[in-house]
Amino acid sequence: MLYEQIGEEVRQYIDQLTKPRGSLGKLEELAIEIAKMTGERFPRVTPPGVIVFAADHGIAKEGVSAYPQEVTAQMVLNFVRGGAAINVFSKQIGATFAVVDVGVALDIHEERVINEKVAYGTKNFAHEQAMTKEEVERAVQAGYRQASAMIDRGIRCLIVGEMGIGNTTTASALLAAMSGRGVAELVGRGTGIHDEMLKHKQAVIERALMLHQPNPSDPVDLLTKIGGLEIAAMAGAMLAAAERCVPILLDGFICTVAALVAERFNERVVHYMIAGHESVEPGHRIALQLLNKEPLVRLHMRLGEGSGAAVAFPIVHMAVSMLHMATFSSANVSTGSDHHA
Amino acid sequence: MLYEQIGEEVRQYIDQLTKPRGSLGKLEELAIEIAKMTGERFPRVTPPGVIVFAADHGIAKEGVSAYPQEVTAQMVLNFVRGGAAINVFSKQIGATFAVVDVGVALDIHEERVINEKVAYGTKNFAHEQAMTKEEVERAVQAGYRQASAMIDRGIRCLIVGEMGIGNTTTASALLAAMSGRGVAELVGRGTGIHDEMLKHKQAVIERALMLHQPNPSDPVDLLTKIGGLEIAAMAGAMLAAAERCVPILLDGFICTVAALVAERFNERVVHYMIAGHESVEPGHRIALQLLNKEPLVRLHMRLGEGSGAAVAFPIVHMAVSMLHMATFSSANVSTGSDHHA
Repeated sequence: MLYEQIGEEVRQYIDQLTKPRGSLGKLEELAIEIAKMTGERFPRVTPPGVIVFAADHGIAKEGVSAYPQEVTAQMVLNFVRGGAAINVFSKQIGATFAVVDVGVALDIHEERVINEKVAYGTKNFAHEQAMTKEEVERAVQAGYRQASAMIDRGIRCLIVGEMGIGNTTTASALLAAMSGRGVAELVGRGTGIHDEMLKHKQAVIERALMLHQPNPSDPVDLLTKIGGLEIAAMAGAMLAAAERCVPILLDGFICTVAALVAERFNERVVHYMIAGHESVEPGHRIALQLLNKEPLVRLHMRLGEGSGAAVAFPIVHMAVSMLHMATFSSANVSTGSDHHA
Repeated sequence: MLYEQIGEEVRQYIDQLTKPRGSLGKLEELAIEIAKMTGERFPRVTPPGVIVFAADHGIAKEGVSAYPQEVTAQMVLNFVRGGAAINVFSKQIGATFAVVDVGVALDIHEERVINEKVAYGTKNFAHEQAMTKEEVERAVQAGYRQASAMIDRGIRCLIVGEMGIGNTTTASALLAAMSGRGVAELVGRGTGIHDEMLKHKQAVIERALMLHQPNPSDPVDLLTKIGGLEIAAMAGAMLAAAERCVPILLDGFICTVAALVAERFNERVVHYMIAGHESVEPGHRIALQLLNKEPLVRLHMRLGEGSGAAVAFPIVHMAVSMLHMATFSSANVSTGSDHHA
């Protein structure tokens, strides 16, 4: 439930700050939204927490990615060693950081990777269901548990990232099913495939949707038939954050599709989401529209990992910092005679 | 002069980082631009420096602002006491901060305000020239001196803000003169005036342009006839930053008009400018187009003070941080077989 009354109080308070009314635009709206989410008149969003969920996708066998499947595991090691984009961005925003193996196809021998492995990747949903219902449940719970643990450690804003070779194909299939939109309209180049692979990727998704006919409003059915383990975990993490009144800063395409899945578990979770950025992946705009969210930035990014959300985070931080400005009366500044016009 | 060769080296280096090629979009372009500006393969942009130049405008007597003139001086005191938006944002980005009185109409009794007062405000350019050529020169030099001093203190990115009741009218007149565009197209509501005042503001500017006929390519003629002391100082500060190869992060409408004035002093200064945000003031988009710059963020802000640039600064910081990612070879991550496609 949102704290509407506190949001209203913060709205009125913002108009007393030493600036023309409304002149901080989107920052003002953000501050009000976050006050509503958290129930705090002076909300804090620091430290943020970044959890990257990693898993492999059987659909990668169809040749839908520019990268080989082993890159998922290699990047997981890169995450714990601090070499990935999300690492440098997390460090800059002072984030608490964790990497969770929820379904990587290889065994990862690195104690800094949190082991929540549900399976060695999903099955290839071009031919069979991606996973069992029990696996869906375990992956969602893993996400829920890890986000809850990070909230227990004091984070005040949750960023959920992902790594999984093939996962734009999975996310595109989920979005096509949930939105009813044509596959050609929302499938993009992922990490960077050429025209021929793009057509192939679209055809693979179309056939899979015909095969499985997932129920667009049933999150377990969607995830079982055409889902990904990291996407299930991301949805679970969002459910935990919303339950604890912690704002969720959305990343790109995969993350926003996970947000739509989370909405199907509990529609109120959407109230706790802020759209961080809009990626160049064509489905992202459609997914954001379905959530009715406007992104904070558009920087032509398409990396995932939580990187776009991390880049947008300082704006969210600025929005709540704004509330610590002086008021017209405390600073002895004259108000405009007719700036209400 | 730009370090084109170093920019090219950084461009190639970025393609070795552990991410799909091009997947960090605008951040990659920014990192290359900043390498070209600074001549550094791993450029630093921290700490940034924020200088707010304050001055009054004789044109305010025409009733073109929602706020009384005394607000300029009141806000200057608010700046040194830490209560304004630019203060909370500067603090968040770890900026070195200074406030310079280059022409406030009142005497300011506060030692933390740097005194570079050239005049007690400009004259009312609806009826006479705003200032003398000597005053223009002194204001430009004050800006140049203050930016140079801050660069000497170690700042690696310059943000130039302003405070001056009436200064959107001055900036609109300058932009109309420099762009040749119609006044109605580029004049906005400033801090928040109503329809009737807006029409009045447009008429005041149109008459002033008829009266003075400034030479659109002569910065001293423009500033003398229809300029502002803080706008002259901002242009001077930008000239200093460019000379020292320090990136300039542009703020909103007034700042971008000052950038166009600086370009008329020395066209190479534009190479050192990064557009921070796009404000809702309609002239801002036109000014950015004339500079051929794309803003990093659009957050419906219209405050000035350097606030929009400060909000955009973390993105610039992220761009140079990105260069500290691991490379594919250092992290043992496989490259995509055909991600060059």
